[in-house]
Amino acid sequence: MSYTASVVGGSGFTGGELLRLLAGHPEFEVVQATSRSKENRTVGHAHPNLRGLDLRFSSPAELESVDVLFAATPHGVSMERIDAFREAADTVVDLSADFRLDTVSQYDEWYDGHSRPELLDEAVYALPELTREELPGAEIVASGGCNATATILGLKPLFDDGVLTGDEQVVVDVKVGSSEGGAGGGEAASHPERSGVVRPYAPTGHRHEAEIEQFLGLDVSFTVHAVDMTRGASATCHIFPGEPVPKGDLWGAYRGSYEDEPFVDLVAGGGGVYRYPEPKAVAGTNRAEVGFELDPENRRLVAFSAIDNMMKGSAGQAVHAANVALGIEETTGLDFKGLHPVGAP
Amino acid sequence: MSYTASVVGGSGFTGGELLRLLAGHPEFEVVQATSRSKENRTVGHAHPNLRGLDLRFSSPAELESVDVLFAATPHGVSMERIDAFREAADTVVDLSADFRLDTVSQYDEWYDGHSRPELLDEAVYALPELTREELPGAEIVASGGCNATATILGLKPLFDDGVLTGDEQVVVDVKVGSSEGGAGGGEAASHPERSGVVRPYAPTGHRHEAEIEQFLGLDVSFTVHAVDMTRGASATCHIFPGEPVPKGDLWGAYRGSYEDEPFVDLVAGGGGVYRYPEPKAVAGTNRAEVGFELDPENRRLVAFSAIDNMMKGSAGQAVHAANVALGIEETTGLDFKGLHPVGAP
Amino acid sequence: MSYTASVVGGSGFTGGELLRLLAGHPEFEVVQATSRSKENRTVGHAHPNLRGLDLRFSSPAELESVDVLFAATPHGVSMERIDAFREAADTVVDLSADFRLDTVSQYDEWYDGHSRPELLDEAVYALPELTREELPGAEIVASGGCNATATILGLKPLFDDGVLTGDEQVVVDVKVGSSEGGAGGGEAASHPERSGVVRPYAPTGHRHEAEIEQFLGLDVSFTVHAVDMTRGASATCHIFPGEPVPKGDLWGAYRGSYEDEPFVDLVAGGGGVYRYPEPKAVAGTNRAEVGFELDPENRRLVAFSAIDNMMKGSAGQAVHAANVALGIEETTGLDFKGLHPVGAP
Amino acid sequence: MSYTASVVGGSGFTGGELLRLLAGHPEFEVVQATSRSKENRTVGHAHPNLRGLDLRFSSPAELESVDVLFAATPHGVSMERIDAFREAADTVVDLSADFRLDTVSQYDEWYDGHSRPELLDEAVYALPELTREELPGAEIVASGGCNATATILGLKPLFDDGVLTGDEQVVVDVKVGSSEGGAGGGEAASHPERSGVVRPYAPTGHRHEAEIEQFLGLDVSFTVHAVDMTRGASATCHIFPGEPVPKGDLWGAYRGSYEDEPFVDLVAGGGGVYRYPEPKAVAGTNRAEVGFELDPENRRLVAFSAIDNMMKGSAGQAVHAANVALGIEETTGLDFKGLHPVGAP
Repeated sequence: MSYTASVVGGSGFTGGELLRLLAGHPEFEVVQATSRSKENRTVGHAHPNLRGLDLRFSSPAELESVDVLFAATPHGVSMERIDAFREAADTVVDLSADFRLDTVSQYDEWYDGHSRPELLDEAVYALPELTREELPGAEIVASGGCNATATILGLKPLFDDGVLTGDEQVVVDVKVGSSEGGAGGGEAASHPERSGVVRPYAPTGHRHEAEIEQFLGLDVSFTVHAVDMTRGASATCHIFPGEPVPKGDLWGAYRGSYEDEPFVDLVAGGGGVYRYPEPKAVAGTNRAEVGFELDPENRRLVAFSAIDNMMKGSAGQAVHAANVALGIEETTGLDFKGLHPVGAP
Repeated sequence: MSYTASVVGGSGFTGGELLRLLAGHPEFEVVQATSRSKENRTVGHAHPNLRGLDLRFSSPAELESVDVLFAATPHGVSMERIDAFREAADTVVDLSADFRLDTVSQYDEWYDGHSRPELLDEAVYALPELTREELPGAEIVASGGCNATATILGLKPLFDDGVLTGDEQVVVDVKVGSSEGGAGGGEAASHPERSGVVRPYAPTGHRHEAEIEQFLGLDVSFTVHAVDMTRGASATCHIFPGEPVPKGDLWGAYRGSYEDEPFVDLVAGGGGVYRYPEPKAVAGTNRAEVGFELDPENRRLVAFSAIDNMMKGSAGQAVHAANVALGIEETTGLDFKGLHPVGAP
Repeated sequence: MSYTASVVGGSGFTGGELLRLLAGHPEFEVVQATSRSKENRTVGHAHPNLRGLDLRFSSPAELESVDVLFAATPHGVSMERIDAFREAADTVVDLSADFRLDTVSQYDEWYDGHSRPELLDEAVYALPELTREELPGAEIVASGGCNATATILGLKPLFDDGVLTGDEQVVVDVKVGSSEGGAGGGEAASHPERSGVVRPYAPTGHRHEAEIEQFLGLDVSFTVHAVDMTRGASATCHIFPGEPVPKGDLWGAYRGSYEDEPFVDLVAGGGGVYRYPEPKAVAGTNRAEVGFELDPENRRLVAFSAIDNMMKGSAGQAVHAANVALGIEETTGLDFKGLHPVGAP
Repeated sequence: MSYTASVVGGSGFTGGELLRLLAGHPEFEVVQATSRSKENRTVGHAHPNLRGLDLRFSSPAELESVDVLFAATPHGVSMERIDAFREAADTVVDLSADFRLDTVSQYDEWYDGHSRPELLDEAVYALPELTREELPGAEIVASGGCNATATILGLKPLFDDGVLTGDEQVVVDVKVGSSEGGAGGGEAASHPERSGVVRPYAPTGHRHEAEIEQFLGLDVSFTVHAVDMTRGASATCHIFPGEPVPKGDLWGAYRGSYEDEPFVDLVAGGGGVYRYPEPKAVAGTNRAEVGFELDPENRRLVAFSAIDNMMKGSAGQAVHAANVALGIEETTGLDFKGLHPVGAP
């Protein structure tokens, strides 16, 4: 194994996914997982699938020296602890939003400001399909957010290929699973209240809107609904391109963007049960499915994308980014194909 | 009991709901329920909640004379059999789409044409909140469709009150349960394939678009997703009103439309777990929840509405319409309040 | 309306069900609902289906005088407050376990003892199918527990009819929904951890074992699993009657016990999809389904029963008991038939 | 890659799992997948997670020569086609029940007889934890059934270690997911009818009883319930050992049986949310979780076991068996750890 790694915030959901991926990754050795609430307990106490790992959570106060530190902490923690993180590791991969945006004014608008603005320039946003070139050698990697990743992957080909100008009306209606709320629970997250819902969870003003707008350079109208699954984010983008777009151009745009991408599949209206992107079909994987349909009646283009929010939307994307940053073959440790059939993912 | 009633197509899902509602309705006596596939079997064989009903399915070929015939048959059946239905009953309440649209050209565009166009004028569309005045005495009642009902109820106050002009871009993103596919099954409807989905089920071109556009007089961009619930339809309407709308005006518009409506509740951003309309909260009832939120950032208005597709979107609406058509107090037989908590409705 | 009623503990799940049932009951008028955590909030804040009720939670410290007080409080509260409850009301219907058992020694063994043992004799256990005769005029009614009710209803005919002697090995394997854990949540109850489970939740030693053994007079081996539904309790009883029992005798026993019972249906191996008792089929209702199958190979009898734990297992049973206690027609206010289809109840 | 392989019945659920596992297995190359219903379609048409596989279904009539043929066909097909299978392959791994039992009389009792009884002796039952020694070189491998595997793994240590004599009363109450019904659907398997159920699906007489009794040498009383998950089988075994068993002896028995088993984990009453075996915790993996609890009150021992019916109960077990039969390291291709959190598996 070539690199040592640690996971700060290892008892949360994305921390657990990181530990699972790193434990199965031939180039990483996990030497530390921290948890404030489960210090001294085994990793398997929090994550039943990792009972086989011989590792106990340690205090986040004492970080071991590693090659790569993955921070799976709530927003705000990484900006406070970034010096300690960098002292402990050459490469810091942050899964929170703390280093995703470019400017303090965005953090003022969408979050509670930023305590280390001088680092925003240095941090590299990691949605490898967008920023692959900038990742090698990056010291602070800001792994892209789940809903933003789903949305950006659905919309990006339309900009890459000039189908859209950026002035179009774009409505993004996202459906997400309960794991987006994180571990721990609370009344709204309890099974009796949360099961079977279609719940407007961020009717307007979801923070990922900032991330999408920054990376696509356009305004989107963004709404998030909670639905009954645990993993998964599905983005449906309704776009009004002004004038009719030939379907062949769309196929060209999507193929052009994704035909060489190892983690993006184009799924658009074929036969069988699974004709468009679905979170079920990518659950547990680092894959995204992207597809589209034309609505000539309304001069509308509908783009669909589906990811596992815990994987392509979080821990998988972070490992993918680390692979690229360190020069490891991109797909290493991320080859799980997903299951069929599978229930609510 | 004042009226005799029959249900044609009684072994399907909406047929079962009709039988349940009519059996508990003080003004109706069910004298016949037909089923091609379950002839001679008890009603309880198809609907376990109705095992207590002493009634067997009979052949749809021989219709008994009743005051009101409810037709819960697949699209196309009612237009073929309408003469027989009218011979059997003074009032025909059709739950299919066969008499909902106004013109043959709409049926040519959205369905497979129409065999009895001369009756389209006579039929009265039944979404009582819209067409209450026209229902008394109607002989053919065309009960509004599920997804159309959810959408129309969410958008209607904006037109009633002049908030919208009809030229706005309107995107309607609907999430529906598996009962919309009807009884019987099939591979895509099987539990292993259908559970846990967020599936673009009608990406574009859903037939209810015609119904919405006819009754609201505007173009909508309509997309339907299947999600993991059995009952329920949730419509999220993203509307771009051109210029900013004060929130107070919106409250005024929604209150003005619905404050006297017995089956519509306004739910918009209060406290607790259930802050916006949710299908769970209305499951089993004839109620609709309607709410909205402003997105000043994007000059967008988001309207939410939630119904039980089998009730307010189908059987409940049909009984409500029959009540109005016959002069029975509107809410009779429709007072079930729903359950809390409830799982996937 | 003939009787005034109050609900102590109105913001919990069973409190909400009581309020729903009482609000729709022609003989009761709800004059007070208490809640420590939601004092001054509307009932609809806790229970979205009850937004139409014009009632706010008040403090449990000040109880109004009513005819009937329903206590939907955690175990231990009623025995502490029973004097205040009785001062406020002529009839106290307690939904907790505080007055279900006969002797202090049982409370010592299964609970944390009892502070008012002198009242145990006076309290009448309410599982009306068992104790109907004792309820009229009762001042303390101890409404039967959910898992106990399901189990007792499945086993009772075998004792009534002498099929069993009481010396048989009886294994009871119960499957329950998440509402049994009550409102509030916690990590194990959170949707990501709780959805899709088959979780041994009380492998042995569940307190309802005491209740079952007391009322049936036999030892049962009792195990409870949590499964993915919100409402519902399904008891499968595996019984070894020593010598072969003719199927006809079993039919006789079950019919003899239940043919006149308004809330118990016998469902045993007919046609269609629903051949045996299922919680889905009784969700939202006060009905129990009971059925059985013979396993001659293993000289085993398998009895199935299914209830809605919130209704026949709690609030519905309490209202049923109050009806009997007060001389109101038994089924009043409890006539909801349930829905078909319905998702996870 | 050392071995060529084919999958007969590749469009079914277990066929899809086999294709997934073999495609990720370093020692196998899949050269053929057959399907009657999806001939000429891509494998991805049936299994969305396998869209990346460049393989089309071919007719089962023309079998290619391979080293190992996996038959994932309905019961009865393998015994009819066994000569063709053996002509095509040196090793036939059959996932059906056709070669699991030892004698024609068992097939007469539990199935519809057997057309090739002379092969029953030759076939090796594959539940590698039981029959590891007999597998190397086997030409017909009969991979163990899902519910039987769960049950046997839960009970086996009690026999290995002499805790049980074989005369005990043993009740096995199994809960299974919808994938056990196979692909295709049907009314009872449709989402509206199947979701949220606790359904007695094989109250008595399930065919796996024969398999369990054959391999454990004792009578079991076996009942199977369908619950709301897609994958998973959970067996709860209630055992009455006659006289008290010290808990330490049980730990000894279970540890002795499983401490060296790569695919069996002992989970019995520790801390955290997952204290006993749960299907969720093993979904997608070839692992089994096994645990137990003592009920001294009732002189009962409760053993729990949980597997993914599609993996350890079918395709995973088949690949595990092939690994052993061919001398490949046992865990090759079967190292997926499972996910946390995960919804309904």
